[in-house]
Amino acid sequence: MALKAFVEVKTDSHFSIHNLPYGIFKHRGGAITTPRPGVAIGDFVLDLSAIHFAGLFDGPLLSNSDCFHQSNLNKFLELGRPAWKEARATVQKLLSSAEPALQNNASLRQRALLPMDEVEMLLPIAIGDYTDFFSSMHHAKNCGTIFRGPENPINPNWFHLPIAYHGRASSIVISGTDIIRPRGQGHPSGNSPPYFGPSRKLDFELEMAAVVGPGNDLGKPIDVNEAADHIFGVVLMNDWSARDIQAWEYVPLGPFLGKSFGTTISPWIVTLDALEPFACDAPNQIPQPLPYLAEKVSKNYYISLEVRIKPAGQEESFIVTRSNFNHLYWTLTQQLAHHTVNGCNLRPGDLLGTGTISGPESESHGCLLELTWNGTKELSLVVAAKVTVTMLDLVHAQGRSYHLCHNCPVISHGASASEVYCKGQNGFTLAR
Amino acid sequence: MALKAFVEVKTDSHFSIHNLPYGIFKHRGGAITTPRPGVAIGDFVLDLSAIHFAGLFDGPLLSNSDCFHQSNLNKFLELGRPAWKEARATVQKLLSSAEPALQNNASLRQRALLPMDEVEMLLPIAIGDYTDFFSSMHHAKNCGTIFRGPENPINPNWFHLPIAYHGRASSIVISGTDIIRPRGQGHPSGNSPPYFGPSRKLDFELEMAAVVGPGNDLGKPIDVNEAADHIFGVVLMNDWSARDIQAWEYVPLGPFLGKSFGTTISPWIVTLDALEPFACDAPNQIPQPLPYLAEKVSKNYYISLEVRIKPAGQEESFIVTRSNFNHLYWTLTQQLAHHTVNGCNLRPGDLLGTGTISGPESESHGCLLELTWNGTKELSLVVAAKVTVTMLDLVHAQGRSYHLCHNCPVISHGASASEVYCKGQNGFTLAR
Repeated sequence: MALKAFVEVKTDSHFSIHNLPYGIFKHRGGAITTPRPGVAIGDFVLDLSAIHFAGLFDGPLLSNSDCFHQSNLNKFLELGRPAWKEARATVQKLLSSAEPALQNNASLRQRALLPMDEVEMLLPIAIGDYTDFFSSMHHAKNCGTIFRGPENPINPNWFHLPIAYHGRASSIVISGTDIIRPRGQGHPSGNSPPYFGPSRKLDFELEMAAVVGPGNDLGKPIDVNEAADHIFGVVLMNDWSARDIQAWEYVPLGPFLGKSFGTTISPWIVTLDALEPFACDAPNQIPQPLPYLAEKVSKNYYISLEVRIKPAGQEESFIVTRSNFNHLYWTLTQQLAHHTVNGCNLRPGDLLGTGTISGPESESHGCLLELTWNGTKELSLVVAAKVTVTMLDLVHAQGRSYHLCHNCPVISHGASASEVYCKGQNGFTLAR
Repeated sequence: MALKAFVEVKTDSHFSIHNLPYGIFKHRGGAITTPRPGVAIGDFVLDLSAIHFAGLFDGPLLSNSDCFHQSNLNKFLELGRPAWKEARATVQKLLSSAEPALQNNASLRQRALLPMDEVEMLLPIAIGDYTDFFSSMHHAKNCGTIFRGPENPINPNWFHLPIAYHGRASSIVISGTDIIRPRGQGHPSGNSPPYFGPSRKLDFELEMAAVVGPGNDLGKPIDVNEAADHIFGVVLMNDWSARDIQAWEYVPLGPFLGKSFGTTISPWIVTLDALEPFACDAPNQIPQPLPYLAEKVSKNYYISLEVRIKPAGQEESFIVTRSNFNHLYWTLTQQLAHHTVNGCNLRPGDLLGTGTISGPESESHGCLLELTWNGTKELSLVVAAKVTVTMLDLVHAQGRSYHLCHNCPVISHGASASEVYCKGQNGFTLAR
């Protein structure tokens, strides 16, 4: 018999009984308003603290843990895959139509199954460190071609190691949070002095990010073939970028203020266990990676990704790119193993961004830098409506609201960021 | 009458009544072994929680605060300069020979003044984000000359903004912690494939770092003329660097694994208030910085800095460089204001490294990359003993102990890192 939830799950819902992503919520106006962990199912959030209080987490690893009575998921992440599997099995069983424990307990259902429109989602993890990789070959090639020309657009090191930089953890916010348009220095060209003002080249970057589980002690690298046990799941990520600030500042130490004004992640973490049916082969890597990056099984995931932009003052949003997670050249596990090979310690809740996920076709480019070829090409939002957006006026196109604040436009990206969503194969939708 | 402590302070002590740096300690074998805040005085640590319990923090900002009953200083940092000044005034008064409250209370003295050799120092702050700047012109010039030649060694952006990169917070440890020699990829030259193994070019970087106080909300920059109110004090920092790993990985996104295997800071934070007598004019900046970086008063500090190396198997350590904090081109306050100008939020306990502090003379270079001119020049530790060290065998020279661990030499840098210490003018020693 097919697994089916007793809770109604609409056919276009992201949250079937096969997904069950984790987040942190606050029940507005509820009896308990403290932030706590929940799992999404249909149009409801299952309150894991209520389920734990009711004694229904009866497995050996979770029954005596207080990990579901925390305001972030870090303690649960620290427990590792056996506890994650125990939690998933318990929740899937409790929500299935064949199981009476929750279904037939009206009082517990009332307390534990909260309508989504009554909750506010919060940042699900306390992020100690955030790292952003550069793992799509198409993105690396396009950026190299734009800035250095079509001969050797990709640096030689790129094919030997997953390039990355340390990002800013403090400015990571949840989808729906306003992002204030950054001010900073840009540089016109040649010997002109730099200008200062609101960024003229605001951009999004379509990414996903891995959420780290147990992690490692300083000086003790994680083997690439054990790296999957340190990845709890993935979130969607928009790595907002100010291209003019970035271009002027980044030599020789890399991106700094061009990125650190804000990074948006989805409220729900989709687990690697839920993604297992969407696993596919990772691309063949030539040259062969060094032994510490050579995996016995090298996995990618088939996850369709879309970005929509909603121009200011319009009701409708427009798809500007369609990409797929499986375009990544370096796998999540290679990224994680490389990160620790020098002894660097990862901690529960650390976030590892994939870098912009661009595909091979121009319709699958993951940022406006590529889609508009650094502002030289118009991007049609929709031909019928004759709306076009270039990179330079993204700021006008992107916001749902657009008003002044500290002499600097506030961009509410509520519309666009929440619509950077991800769908799996066969219409099985994973997160929003 | 000159201010004098009732506690004995030897003339060569770092910890006079004028310094009073803050740290977090654990009293080994004491009645209370939980980590808590303390202030250094002579060969003692003053337990601030004991002073608070005794009701001697009787000022309006601290009497009802629990900031001295925490395992890190973050809550104290968040309170801001008025509370810091109140704490300093209270502690300085209590320790002075003119004040009986502590001096004449034998039981409290017993509880609150703990011999330094009975305590273990811990990381004083929970570091949310760590940023490292590149603010010494001499260092920037030397690195540029080594890697790109003597024509235009400094990138044009350098004179317009304090260049920086995000660093790794998880691997910041306190002085005395073993650092494991990192493994990673290096690249010989030309089209050769990369090699993998223990770093062949391990280096130190002589730095100091500012500890952030209250900080700012996302989207609300801090004015450069108010930036000093967000800096609690400074620590010494050794930004361990693996030059071979760094050189191969850093294009185009900056340093990553070449730095993230470990960063050492001193246990004691010297406050800006204690450093006030050592304030001096910052260098004249040409071209004039943009208005958001133009300060009404532009301050540097006169702090003598030395690095010593203790070769393996030797009792003695040798001074390899003598530099000074006042060689920095960009001030701490410019660094902080620039960091927030795009709206990036700083949080209490964030750490802002200065970058390697090199002076103009070759004897004042702040790292082995410069001192050995990328391994092309021998560095004499002492002529009489005929010991020389080049960059490539730093690993042999640096450790007090040197043994194998995970196929990879462990470098105990206890000797060298604790001997990267700082002295103020007139022999007034500030921290170790």
